[in-house]
Amino acid sequence: MTMALNETHAPELRSWVESANQPGSDFPIQNLPFGVFRRRSEGAQSAWHVGVAIGDAILDLHTVIDAGAFSAEPALAQQALKAAGGESLNALMALNVAAWSALRLSLSRSLRVGSPVQSTLQAALVAQKDVEFALPAQIGDYTDFYTSVHHATAIGKLFRPDQPLLPNYKWVPIGYHGRSSSIAVGPQQFRRPLGQTKPPEADAPVFGPSKRMDYEMEVGIFIGSGNAPGDAIALDQAEANVFGLCLLNDWSARDIQAWEYQPLGPFLAKNFASTISPWVVTLEALAPYRLAWSRDAADPQPLPYLDSAAMRESGAFDIELEVALQTSAMRQAAQPPQRLSLSNFRYSYWSVSQLVTHHTVGGCNLRPGDLLGSGTQSGPAPSEAGSLLELSAGGKQPIQLTNGESRTFLEDGDTVVMRAWAQRPGLARIGFGELSGTLLPARTA
Amino acid sequence: MTMALNETHAPELRSWVESANQPGSDFPIQNLPFGVFRRRSEGAQSAWHVGVAIGDAILDLHTVIDAGAFSAEPALAQQALKAAGGESLNALMALNVAAWSALRLSLSRSLRVGSPVQSTLQAALVAQKDVEFALPAQIGDYTDFYTSVHHATAIGKLFRPDQPLLPNYKWVPIGYHGRSSSIAVGPQQFRRPLGQTKPPEADAPVFGPSKRMDYEMEVGIFIGSGNAPGDAIALDQAEANVFGLCLLNDWSARDIQAWEYQPLGPFLAKNFASTISPWVVTLEALAPYRLAWSRDAADPQPLPYLDSAAMRESGAFDIELEVALQTSAMRQAAQPPQRLSLSNFRYSYWSVSQLVTHHTVGGCNLRPGDLLGSGTQSGPAPSEAGSLLELSAGGKQPIQLTNGESRTFLEDGDTVVMRAWAQRPGLARIGFGELSGTLLPARTA
Repeated sequence: MTMALNETHAPELRSWVESANQPGSDFPIQNLPFGVFRRRSEGAQSAWHVGVAIGDAILDLHTVIDAGAFSAEPALAQQALKAAGGESLNALMALNVAAWSALRLSLSRSLRVGSPVQSTLQAALVAQKDVEFALPAQIGDYTDFYTSVHHATAIGKLFRPDQPLLPNYKWVPIGYHGRSSSIAVGPQQFRRPLGQTKPPEADAPVFGPSKRMDYEMEVGIFIGSGNAPGDAIALDQAEANVFGLCLLNDWSARDIQAWEYQPLGPFLAKNFASTISPWVVTLEALAPYRLAWSRDAADPQPLPYLDSAAMRESGAFDIELEVALQTSAMRQAAQPPQRLSLSNFRYSYWSVSQLVTHHTVGGCNLRPGDLLGSGTQSGPAPSEAGSLLELSAGGKQPIQLTNGESRTFLEDGDTVVMRAWAQRPGLARIGFGELSGTLLPARTA
Repeated sequence: MTMALNETHAPELRSWVESANQPGSDFPIQNLPFGVFRRRSEGAQSAWHVGVAIGDAILDLHTVIDAGAFSAEPALAQQALKAAGGESLNALMALNVAAWSALRLSLSRSLRVGSPVQSTLQAALVAQKDVEFALPAQIGDYTDFYTSVHHATAIGKLFRPDQPLLPNYKWVPIGYHGRSSSIAVGPQQFRRPLGQTKPPEADAPVFGPSKRMDYEMEVGIFIGSGNAPGDAIALDQAEANVFGLCLLNDWSARDIQAWEYQPLGPFLAKNFASTISPWVVTLEALAPYRLAWSRDAADPQPLPYLDSAAMRESGAFDIELEVALQTSAMRQAAQPPQRLSLSNFRYSYWSVSQLVTHHTVGGCNLRPGDLLGSGTQSGPAPSEAGSLLELSAGGKQPIQLTNGESRTFLEDGDTVVMRAWAQRPGLARIGFGELSGTLLPARTA
């Protein structure tokens, strides 16, 4: 946790952007997450810019570059800023920890109360409410893991009552390749997928809209510099290859999944849509919220390539993960989303560094902008379940909502809202903002 | 098979590129496959060009554009040619069947004996032996299917003796998402992957180089124009969204696969390397080799979204698929690769159009340049098996090679050579060229 001493984390730092100093803001000056946006007023033909969230505003790095506002900053920070001059974060991600850190320090100093460039940067601010977002990066490949042993056990009970947790689970960070083309930034709207499902008592499958639509609360991991084909990333180098984290909703059609997933894994059950949050929170911003990583004595200890003293010392993240639901009826009655669960990334059975190292150990190359999903982050308590499948016990126990409605799975018009934050007395809150997605009725043609 | 009457297929057509008229050439004027190459003499900094194979040469479309050689051709052909002016086929793929067909007709006329532009095009020819190839397209997403019921049954017997063919197989075109970052064009060299495997009698997995390295003989399917998120591609529109076919070797580490693949499918067992052939053969070139598609009466007939009269009339392809092996010892003794199997794409249980339609039926968007793998194309006879796992009965029956060596799985230095062609008396041969890949020793650090 040496990073915790870095000046950019000092809780007393205040920004000249006043909204960043409000208690409860997801985006104080200690956070500085990256995203890609454009002003809504400029229309669909205008270019996308890289920006940094500060309070309820965004610092437009394209404008910062044009204004030459960082000309007095160190060369490495200027190099990183230049890499943020395109329409995605890929070029910045392709640099390295030192460059990301230098840019973060320059941003922090420039946005602080008393900064000599305040008047220059003022013109580079845009209100978050006035923009639309794009995917933060071009995602070459998307891999989804399965790191919550609580989720794996709960789902396993439903799909394989005889053997909920397979023998490999506690040895192998189980993952599979997902679909990158259908990943969008929130808020996303998408149609209920059609597909094959097989009712338990039927002889043959039927075709139609999924009847068991679900969400999955996940943490997304954006890869930074990556590795060459054939090389592997050692465990203690793994985090240096991670640019940052975001929120990820891995929408799932459970009935399609149950019928199709053997023997090669989920396919159409997951590839119609996945939604990520606009903001990518850097690992450096999260440094004060690192936790020790450990295994129960009863569990197998990791194989050597997945184990190190440094990983055990601070391999976990203390990040709260909330899921809320707003039905059509709630929206019409102007009721806010209702919380369905609150979990924490600390429960993950595998660390972020273990996922990166395992992914590359056979020689698979990761590229800047690749996205890894953590898998559904369910905690040990029932109220910490990260999917409806778990919360409703496979659809058997409806969830009662405060407005009198109930849900087993999602209904058309439902909006799922995910939020995440790290917060602790004496430390600045590091928020992820909000990720929302809405299920539309199935295609009829 | 209306395309079979198209003038570009006429068997009597001859090219002024003499090598294209040699019997046995994979690239007569009736073929005209697309690829991406650069002259080896120009070095690693030179640009990649799109080219068309003709005999032992390549027509460099970049040079064709610069020379204005198609200025008398129809506007649609000129538009398609212009789209082939970049460093990959993606822009051409993003057009449509009419544009691809117009370009093919112009290419055919220009390369025929008596063409008025022969002297202009002569300068646009480069010998295939003088170039290196790139991936034909930027592959956004790669999906691998499992369309050979013979392969699925043989593999299933080894992984699940009690239930070789799962109940969904004959209803669902089983597929899973693969890794795009590690796809390379042949000839590819890659290191034997390391990973976790679990010996049957051991309590815990071990880490080390895979001991059961295998190839898989597949057909690759390049997507053309694709679909918007949420839309589906109807079965009778599916082939209009396919640009062409190539060869695909889906290298597999069987011991890693056996330990990791449940419940979410193959991951590290497949993502270290996949190799495709340099040339993409268009569906129009293959039109004379289409076959009727049918199901045995004992098999379930497809659900309506996967069935049509047109698909049944000509949904299959008559393409021979050959795998050969050249060991280090053979190479040192200047012995050619030895054939291990000969199969045919006609055995595929699912048609290309069914794969495209199924992939999109839930709303997943396909993009130009996306790649689908057919899955291992094993035929009904033992000699038609498309992997060593099948040929060696799971490693139990070594394959005797004519030089005295034997193989159950691949050894370091082995080169696998795949070839494919369509050929029939009275028709021009449509070849795919050669795809080769070599297994290097595992990483030691």
